Amino acid sequence: MPRYKLVIEYDGAPFVGWQMQENGISVQGAIEAAVMAFCGDAVSVRGAGRTDAGVHALHQVAHLDLAREWDTDTIRDAVNAHLRPHPIAVLSTEAVPATFDARFSALKRHYVYRIINRRAPLALDHARAWRIARPLDAQAMDAAARHLIGQHDFTTFRAAECQAKSPIKTLDRLDVEREDDELHVHASARSFLHHQVRSMVGSLTLVGEGKWKVDEIARALEARDRKVCGPVAPPDGLFLAGVDY
Amino acid sequence: MPRYKLVIEYDGAPFVGWQMQENGISVQGAIEAAVMAFCGDAVSVRGAGRTDAGVHALHQVAHLDLAREWDTDTIRDAVNAHLRPHPIAVLSTEAVPATFDARFSALKRHYVYRIINRRAPLALDHARAWRIARPLDAQAMDAAARHLIGQHDFTTFRAAECQAKSPIKTLDRLDVEREDDELHVHASARSFLHHQVRSMVGSLTLVGEGKWKVDEIARALEARDRKVCGPVAPPDGLFLAGVDY
Repeated sequence: MPRYKLVIEYDGAPFVGWQMQENGISVQGAIEAAVMAFCGDAVSVRGAGRTDAGVHALHQVAHLDLAREWDTDTIRDAVNAHLRPHPIAVLSTEAVPATFDARFSALKRHYVYRIINRRAPLALDHARAWRIARPLDAQAMDAAARHLIGQHDFTTFRAAECQAKSPIKTLDRLDVEREDDELHVHASARSFLHHQVRSMVGSLTLVGEGKWKVDEIARALEARDRKVCGPVAPPDGLFLAGVDY
Repeated sequence: MPRYKLVIEYDGAPFVGWQMQENGISVQGAIEAAVMAFCGDAVSVRGAGRTDAGVHALHQVAHLDLAREWDTDTIRDAVNAHLRPHPIAVLSTEAVPATFDARFSALKRHYVYRIINRRAPLALDHARAWRIARPLDAQAMDAAARHLIGQHDFTTFRAAECQAKSPIKTLDRLDVEREDDELHVHASARSFLHHQVRSMVGSLTLVGEGKWKVDEIARALEARDRKVCGPVAPPDGLFLAGVDY
């Protein structure tokens, strides 16, 4: 069966997350239904990142196997037509060898977390950023972020329900940049623990507010204790921004 | 009566436009209702730009007179609280002299028009950009845009229902920049005719698609004939981005 790689954009707000669940519509389920409507194949779509409810994707990658070969532009356009009105778009489609696995072949995943730092609520970016009213010191947050880069036991920043075998991960990038009232936290790693990015971002905001000193993030990491983690940042601001193979 | 200047952001999609109309909720009407709920004053809120239905604002400016003085942060926070759940946010509030008029004191208005040039529909930017599937030559569009800068009779780019006394306007800025699949058209002038920006953008896309040569935009301008105008770009991509005083 020919295998295809899809690059996918979605607004995570109306979904229970990437993965199929019983309590609502998932991004994966919506795509599988659209493929069924297009060509009649009951496919399983595997994604590189199992984003949580409310988390968005600028560039999710998934693969699926179809019963026969199709022109890749036809797959993209037909699946998009059947995805309406869901806020999910297949950006591109590519034929890949059967050895390609969107999840297991991924070498690096890139996330961006958007914070808008102002008093006023979000009119244009509602559910697409975390609005924080208290002033944030982005330089302090950036300095704190550097303490988390590298290979560490990230137990502090791991959800209780995380199913990974080991809490040890290698974080390749974590930095904070500010432009006007918008902060972007960039996080890259081969893989992440459940809620790791949102847990790290939540703790960084404590540094930004001055509640934690810059090096308290290192102490929180070393504690390997979920109880010392800051608040878990809401899903609204998190975007899966790319996957390297 | 003390006068206040408000800077306002909104998602234009659910509104009939800035101005009050009988057929639905306007941005102006929603703000006036929020002010009434906050302090009981029946105010008239005057905006710098009377944006059409579906047009957004990153930075609309308006003024209003209140019966008594208030702390400016209180006005901002209270009006925002009463605006919920409308996607309208007061970004800042400032006391201004009674001679300040958001509409008539404005020296320059700045608009940005967002085009996303790709085959796939918009998942994250639905109703916040114009998606054009056919490839656009942004450099040709930028070269064509230069022909419209300056003082001209803009009859070609003016809506039939435009109520301005004269079709002569001075366009200070019109240029097109591209980054990846996103194009931004920047337009600045003291004032614009009705549908002028969307009419100019629509004609520029004809140049971008190669249907018009670069200098055909100059001939369209010189024709002073609404019938030679290209398509009027949809409101989705238009943002009022700033007002200078």
